[in-house]
Amino acid sequence: MGRWEPNARERLASSALELFLERGYESTTAAEIAERAGLAKSTFFRHFTDKREVLFGGQDALNHLFGDAITGAPDSATPIDAVGAALDAAATIFRPERRAWVQQRQAVIAGNSDLRERELLKRATLAAAMADALRKRGVTDPTASLAAELASLAFRNAHTLWVGPTNQRDFADIAHQELHALRAATAELD
Amino acid sequence: MGRWEPNARERLASSALELFLERGYESTTAAEIAERAGLAKSTFFRHFTDKREVLFGGQDALNHLFGDAITGAPDSATPIDAVGAALDAAATIFRPERRAWVQQRQAVIAGNSDLRERELLKRATLAAAMADALRKRGVTDPTASLAAELASLAFRNAHTLWVGPTNQRDFADIAHQELHALRAATAELD
Repeated sequence: MGRWEPNARERLASSALELFLERGYESTTAAEIAERAGLAKSTFFRHFTDKREVLFGGQDALNHLFGDAITGAPDSATPIDAVGAALDAAATIFRPERRAWVQQRQAVIAGNSDLRERELLKRATLAAAMADALRKRGVTDPTASLAAELASLAFRNAHTLWVGPTNQRDFADIAHQELHALRAATAELD
Repeated sequence: MGRWEPNARERLASSALELFLERGYESTTAAEIAERAGLAKSTFFRHFTDKREVLFGGQDALNHLFGDAITGAPDSATPIDAVGAALDAAATIFRPERRAWVQQRQAVIAGNSDLRERELLKRATLAAAMADALRKRGVTDPTASLAAELASLAFRNAHTLWVGPTNQRDFADIAHQELHALRAATAELD
């Protein structure tokens, strides 16, 4: 088997999710994932440090994508505009053709408490990345943390709605609606 | 050694923190904690499932305390008033005489990435507990989640300020000021 395999990472990720759903996350090994994908175990470890990274390996890229969208927003952008730009950037990842994969991923995570904890943690790091990017734009605290938390909550809600079985809408549409609803809800706090 | 030991839980918790700071969290065993406290190892395991619970065992109680304060707030209380009542309830735990212990705890957590992750996770469960309690009061989403996130952020900031080396202020004062600042910052989002 050659060292270069076309689409190896995608094939491994698909096979991993199939096996996690068939046999359970705990019971699946990296060797079995590689075998299902028709690849060597060593190929698995060239692409992922462990099986958990199949599910969470995209997080650093997502943090950077969000951070870059915020720092790259026009000077005239308000804090809420800037985090809105981050949600638009997220839509480049949450494309319609990726929905089935994300749905499967969520089903695997929902079935395992360690994975649910990891998911919560990753969302906390995403909020922190957004708050940092806002501070780089000169937005001071507590506005920077507040805008980041609102965007994080909008992202979480949008993610849940977007993977829903009957959803037909684009990620960006949903995310902006959620962000707008949270912005509007600030008038209902007291 | 008798089965009943006065203040065993507090003695174990103090000894654990001493050892975590002296030798590192990873290198400390439950047996060593019990020995330092002058208690049997079996006594340790009657009070804590493992050494991590020494640091995080109070979380369920905190979630309940916050939730009960919110559900028990007067009918006339707005969402922001209700989460303010939760922060007042927190002040019954974060009393001046406990500050040294909480400072040590934070130092241990800061030095270990697994513990920092656990801390983030626990804060997410606290926000979820507050949002649930607000929904029980009839506050609908997204206002319930928003108020809970604001309170969670105020709690986090207040906790950091309260444990600060030169702090002299009460937890409730700091927490209310932080919550007020976040509430005011909603006018700076756009």
